[in-house]
Amino acid sequence: MAYEFRLQRRVEFSETDAAGIVHFSNFFRYMEAVEHAFFRSLGYSVLLRDHQPPLGFPRVAAACEYKAPLRFEDLVELHLLVREKKPRSLSYLVKFTNLSAQPRREVARGTLTVVCVAKNADGSFTATPIPRDLAEKIKVAPAELLV
Amino acid sequence: MAYEFRLQRRVEFSETDAAGIVHFSNFFRYMEAVEHAFFRSLGYSVLLRDHQPPLGFPRVAAACEYKAPLRFEDLVELHLLVREKKPRSLSYLVKFTNLSAQPRREVARGTLTVVCVAKNADGSFTATPIPRDLAEKIKVAPAELLV
Amino acid sequence: MAYEFRLQRRVEFSETDAAGIVHFSNFFRYMEAVEHAFFRSLGYSVLLRDHQPPLGFPRVAAACEYKAPLRFEDLVELHLLVREKKPRSLSYLVKFTNLSAQPRREVARGTLTVVCVAKNADGSFTATPIPRDLAEKIKVAPAELLV
Amino acid sequence: MAYEFRLQRRVEFSETDAAGIVHFSNFFRYMEAVEHAFFRSLGYSVLLRDHQPPLGFPRVAAACEYKAPLRFEDLVELHLLVREKKPRSLSYLVKFTNLSAQPRREVARGTLTVVCVAKNADGSFTATPIPRDLAEKIKVAPAELLV
Repeated sequence: MAYEFRLQRRVEFSETDAAGIVHFSNFFRYMEAVEHAFFRSLGYSVLLRDHQPPLGFPRVAAACEYKAPLRFEDLVELHLLVREKKPRSLSYLVKFTNLSAQPRREVARGTLTVVCVAKNADGSFTATPIPRDLAEKIKVAPAELLV
Repeated sequence: MAYEFRLQRRVEFSETDAAGIVHFSNFFRYMEAVEHAFFRSLGYSVLLRDHQPPLGFPRVAAACEYKAPLRFEDLVELHLLVREKKPRSLSYLVKFTNLSAQPRREVARGTLTVVCVAKNADGSFTATPIPRDLAEKIKVAPAELLV
Repeated sequence: MAYEFRLQRRVEFSETDAAGIVHFSNFFRYMEAVEHAFFRSLGYSVLLRDHQPPLGFPRVAAACEYKAPLRFEDLVELHLLVREKKPRSLSYLVKFTNLSAQPRREVARGTLTVVCVAKNADGSFTATPIPRDLAEKIKVAPAELLV
Repeated sequence: MAYEFRLQRRVEFSETDAAGIVHFSNFFRYMEAVEHAFFRSLGYSVLLRDHQPPLGFPRVAAACEYKAPLRFEDLVELHLLVREKKPRSLSYLVKFTNLSAQPRREVARGTLTVVCVAKNADGSFTATPIPRDLAEKIKVAPAELLV
């Protein structure tokens, strides 16, 4: 059972803004990227296309606190931790560390809460339990890592 | 029958990059925005959901030439002109004018070629004629406007 | 003195994702758009270029709760309310209402906390009081609007 | 002297649109990503901050032809080739290959033309020769690779 995943990525120019830093909205894209990489590390896609109807994990809440900016070409570590696990939802903590800074420092911290849904034929969503085989591979991180 | 459409939009902060100007990829988003507004002005969505299977207009070619930068909060006019019309495809010219510049000036010019497709159940696309009722509302712009 | 601003925008295709809905990160771009339009309604840009050094308002916290999806071409009302005002920071509540839904409904609610900073020559930021002329135009919204 | 660079990346969910495919504007972001990785492979950033004034490479032309869609989690190879080298500008060809397709196939092909500029204190740009040390590391690809 896994409770964490780490991913490195380099800031791209298109992710910066006229203040010379990564636009704050992109931290949410980064959080999603590490979440999806976590699923892949478990052998799953976040889009469970094999289910009938297909399952997905839309977000119900997202938040981020920004402590220092990221800039073009900074190398960033995204450290995802499972902070909550319920029958139909998961919640993650993501710590952003700028590996290009001297010394390396945590620049932001975010949370993401996602719900497992079935996608109906009309495009609407119905909350549904996380499939057992997937749920059995995920557990909540130790409390000391979540502070 | 229509051959042009004009749309104004103000540059948003999230569209700029660390060079202090609109990221070049966003000119393609702007082109698509005026294309879709053109369709709405004709009473259509670019997603023809009423057809069975649903029709759409994916891009097969896109290009842009950049003459001057756009900056945060500049007011931009997007002037779309139909430059080619075929049974299954349309091609547009889009002229970008910075209305905030003194004097106002053309800052970019782009082209977009789209193909009408049916979206199959497996997610693949099949090229298909543009529905007649829609095609009858669109014509090619006069040649003197396309230079 | 102003404490709110309303802005309508239509969902663009580039803002949607493969789930057929607006990507959750774009709600943060929408929040910023109404914040900047609020500043313009007061006669200001969020980039105070006339100050020496120039001032700006980077985000220190952002959050959003999602209740229902937005889809391509939905017309959305963004209702910004000032929920907190301090010498060096402002906090906003933004209510998202889907005007294309029958009946119209609130689909999301977000918060944004920004700090006034001076941008130093080396690109770093220093927190600084909001200029008095600007601060005098902004007040906190009545409590009954903030629930 | 180098004339090419290859980069793999996996399609992210935020890069897809409601048609279930990568939004066409993102192919331009991908092209820029491989261009910048090419510069890093030569020991350079595309932002030459050590020069006084700093140098950069804004785009003057960009184009892409789309042959097949990319989808969420597809692994894509970006193959950049230098197709033109002038004293003040460079032009690239980028071939997009979907490595997740069976068999792997070229899905798009784009071009990018960039100009070396000095960024003036007022934010304007002046075209300037590519610094010799950088120019000496780049050459045009063999003609047979550019077809």
